[in-house]
Amino acid sequence: MLARTSICGILTKPTTYTNTLRIIQSYSAVMSKFELPSRFKGNDKSVWVEYIQLALKYKPLNLGQGFPDFHAPESITKALASTANSQNPLLQQYTRGFGHPRLINAIAKLYSKLLKRTLDPNNEVLVTVGAYEALYTALQGHTNPGDEWIIIEPFYDCYVPMVRIVGGIPRFIPLKPKNTNGPLSSADWTFDKKELEKLFNEKTKGIVINTPNNPIGKVYTLDELQFIADLAKKWNTLVVSDEVYEWIVYGSSQHVRIASLPGMYERTITIGSAGKSFSVTGWKIGWAYGPANLMHNLQIVHQNVVYTCSTPIQEAVALGFEEEMERFDQPSCYFFSLPKELLPKRDYMAKFLSDVGMLPTVPEGGYFMIADWTALEKKAKLEEETDDNKDYRFTKWMTKNVGLQGIPVSAFYSSEHKHLAENFVRYCFIKKDENLENAAKILMEWKSKS
Amino acid sequence: MLARTSICGILTKPTTYTNTLRIIQSYSAVMSKFELPSRFKGNDKSVWVEYIQLALKYKPLNLGQGFPDFHAPESITKALASTANSQNPLLQQYTRGFGHPRLINAIAKLYSKLLKRTLDPNNEVLVTVGAYEALYTALQGHTNPGDEWIIIEPFYDCYVPMVRIVGGIPRFIPLKPKNTNGPLSSADWTFDKKELEKLFNEKTKGIVINTPNNPIGKVYTLDELQFIADLAKKWNTLVVSDEVYEWIVYGSSQHVRIASLPGMYERTITIGSAGKSFSVTGWKIGWAYGPANLMHNLQIVHQNVVYTCSTPIQEAVALGFEEEMERFDQPSCYFFSLPKELLPKRDYMAKFLSDVGMLPTVPEGGYFMIADWTALEKKAKLEEETDDNKDYRFTKWMTKNVGLQGIPVSAFYSSEHKHLAENFVRYCFIKKDENLENAAKILMEWKSKS
Repeated sequence: MLARTSICGILTKPTTYTNTLRIIQSYSAVMSKFELPSRFKGNDKSVWVEYIQLALKYKPLNLGQGFPDFHAPESITKALASTANSQNPLLQQYTRGFGHPRLINAIAKLYSKLLKRTLDPNNEVLVTVGAYEALYTALQGHTNPGDEWIIIEPFYDCYVPMVRIVGGIPRFIPLKPKNTNGPLSSADWTFDKKELEKLFNEKTKGIVINTPNNPIGKVYTLDELQFIADLAKKWNTLVVSDEVYEWIVYGSSQHVRIASLPGMYERTITIGSAGKSFSVTGWKIGWAYGPANLMHNLQIVHQNVVYTCSTPIQEAVALGFEEEMERFDQPSCYFFSLPKELLPKRDYMAKFLSDVGMLPTVPEGGYFMIADWTALEKKAKLEEETDDNKDYRFTKWMTKNVGLQGIPVSAFYSSEHKHLAENFVRYCFIKKDENLENAAKILMEWKSKS
Repeated sequence: MLARTSICGILTKPTTYTNTLRIIQSYSAVMSKFELPSRFKGNDKSVWVEYIQLALKYKPLNLGQGFPDFHAPESITKALASTANSQNPLLQQYTRGFGHPRLINAIAKLYSKLLKRTLDPNNEVLVTVGAYEALYTALQGHTNPGDEWIIIEPFYDCYVPMVRIVGGIPRFIPLKPKNTNGPLSSADWTFDKKELEKLFNEKTKGIVINTPNNPIGKVYTLDELQFIADLAKKWNTLVVSDEVYEWIVYGSSQHVRIASLPGMYERTITIGSAGKSFSVTGWKIGWAYGPANLMHNLQIVHQNVVYTCSTPIQEAVALGFEEEMERFDQPSCYFFSLPKELLPKRDYMAKFLSDVGMLPTVPEGGYFMIADWTALEKKAKLEEETDDNKDYRFTKWMTKNVGLQGIPVSAFYSSEHKHLAENFVRYCFIKKDENLENAAKILMEWKSKS
C-alpha cells in the first residue's frame, strides 16, 4: 500500500533519480509479490496445454495427444461400474496412502513374476496419480540442488521441469538416426556410447530412460540397457525407467526391464501406467516400484502432495490386473491382444505417411510415429506462424489450415538440441480405423492441391 | 565404489586419524547419496500414516480418520457407474489438465451464485487431486524461500510441510478456549487479535484459515473473518481459505466465505472438496478458485505434478453438482440434508463423552469433536507408551487396550504449542449409529472397570 502511495508521489511532485528508482523498485516488489516463484520460471510452458487449446479452437482431426478414441476393454470399465455400485461403502472412502491394498498386491504379484524376485507390496510399490506423479515423486524425492540427471532425448517433456524446479541439472544426450538408405526403423535411432560415458560424473544422481520410447517408439536393446546399467553401477547412480508402454511392442522386439539386469534392482525405480496398460489414460493411476530404501523418498513426496489416490479407480485397476493375470498365458490377455490390434494401424499409418511424401520412422513399440515432413515444406505456409522452431510452425499451420493435428518433436528435446528434431512431427495411431483413414484422406487431398 | 574400497582399506592397513576421518566422510557420502533430500527432513512424519498402521494392526473401532462408514448418496455413485458404462469412449481418456470442462463449469456456476460474482471457469477454477493437492498447489505456487505464512492452530497437519519444503516459514497462533463454566462450544475457541496483528509483517506472504475448522469444528464468525481480511489487505497478503467442510454447519451457525468480503476476492484462494461435500473421500477430487493471476501459479504447479485428474470421477462429480444445484432450494439437496443427518450424531457423541467423564467441545461445524480426556488419565497406563506427547500416549494406549481409536490433537499444533493440546483427543462422528453406540459402550465398560 505504501508503495502505491509513493508511486502516486511521482505524479504529483518532482523527485530525484535515486528516489524514483527506489520508488519503482518498491512498487515492482509489491506487484511481483504474487508472481510465480523463481524456481518455476522457464518451467511454465507445456506443449500439451498449448496444443489442447489449439485443438479446442480449431477442432482438427486430432492425432496429437496419446490416447485411444475407441472403447477401453469392457472388463475394466465394468469393474469400475461395479465398484461404484458396490455394497461395500468403504470403496468410496480414503484408502491406504501409498496404495490401495488390493492394487499393491496385484502390482507386486505381477512384477514379482516378471522380474523373478519377490516384491514387498507395502514397501516396494507406490501407487500414484498416473505415471506423471510417479515421475514427480521419483525426481523430486531424489534430487538435491546441484544433482545432475542424464536425460536421453527425445524425452517425455515433464522430466526436465521436475528436475529443474528443485535445483537439479539435466544433462542431455540425443538419440540420432543412423544413416540408412531404406525406410527408417526406431531401432536406427541410437545414442553415442562415448558421449553417454562422458556425461557421467560425481554429481550424477541418475539417468532417466524411457523404453519403449515416446515419441520415437524405440525399444532399447539388451546391449544398450546393459551399457547404461554398467555406467550406473560404475558411478553409483540411480536409473529411473519410464516403462509406461511396456506391453506395446511389435514383431520380434522385446521389452527388457532394466531392473531385471544383474545388480540393477537396487538402484532402479521403474514406472508404469494403468492408463497405457488398460487404454484408460483418463483414470490417472500409475505406479513406481523399486527397493524400499529408494521408494521411501517417493512415499514422502507423495504424502506431501496428494497423500492418497482414488479408491474406486484403484479397486477397478486391481480387478483388471487380477483378470489379466488369470489369462496371462492366453492370447485374450489384453497386454498381448492390444499390440496385435495396433500393429495394422501402425503399418497403415507408415504407408499413408510415405505415400504422401513424409518419411516415417516405423516404431518397434508404443503408439506414436514420427515422420520427416520437410519434403512437403513448400506446401505449408510456415511464414504465417511465428514460433522459433520450424516443427511448431508446421504443426500449427497444419492444425489451422489442413485440419490435422500432430505434435512438434522438438518439444521433446532440450533447447540446445531442438534443431535436431525440427524436421519431425509426431502422430498417434491408437485411433479408430476410420479416423486413421480420414487422416490419410486429409493429407492426400492437401498434397494433391496445387 | 572408490569410497567402499577405501573403507576396506581401514581394515587392512593402518592409517592416520585424518585419513580415517576423510575415509569415513566419503563413505557416508556414498551411503547418503540416496537419502531423503534435506528439504524433506523433519517433514516426513504423518500422523495419518502412523495411526492407519496402528488401526490395521490392532483393529480397534476406528473413530480416527474422517470419513463416513455408511453409503455415499446413491445419486453420485450411480453417476460414476453410468460414466464407467458410458457409450462415449472419451470419458475414460485424458481430459483438460486444469479441470474437466463439465466440472469447472459446474463449480464456477455454484460459486458464482454463492459469491455473487461471475467466476470464469477456465481461469479462476482449478480441479485437483483432493483438497490436499489444491493446498499443495496454493502453498507451493505462492512460496519463495523466506516467505512467511501465518497458520492458525489447530491446523490440518499438511499445511506446515507444504510451506517448509520450499523454504517458507510458518508462523503460528493458537486458538484457545475462553474460560467458561458450562460445557464448551467450538465458538469458545478464539484467537487473540493483538497476537495475530503482531504476526503480520513485510515478509508475510499469506495466512491459512480453515473454516469450519478441523479438528475443533469452529465456524469463524463474520467479525473474526473481517478482522483477518483487514490485516490481509493492510499488509497486502494472500488468504488461503480451506473450506472443505463448507456445507457441514449446525444450528444457527453460518459459513461465511472470506472471498465474499469486500476487497477480498482478489487476494483469496478458496479450497473445496468433493470428498467432503458428497461423502466420497476416496474419490480424491478437490478444487481451488480465486482470481486468474493468483490461480496461474497453482496451474503451473499442478501441470508439473499430476498434469490432470481422473476424467470419470470428474464427470461423476459434475453430474452430482448439477443434480444438487437443481434442488438447491429443497431440503433434499445433499448439501443441506447431510448436516441434518449428522446433528443427532454430534449430540449423541457429546452426551456419551460427557457421561464417561470426558469434556467435549461441541462443534458448530465439520464432523469431528475434540474432548478433554484428562479426568480419565489414571485409568490409562500412559507409562506403557513412549511418545513425547501425552495425547499420543493416551490415544495409542486406548487403541491397543480399549479398542477405540481417536487422533491426538497435538498433531494439529506446532511443536512450540503442542502442550496446549495434550489434554485432547479427536473423534469423528460421521459414522453409522451402531458404531457410535459401540463406541459409547466400549468407553462405558472401560470406565466401569475397577
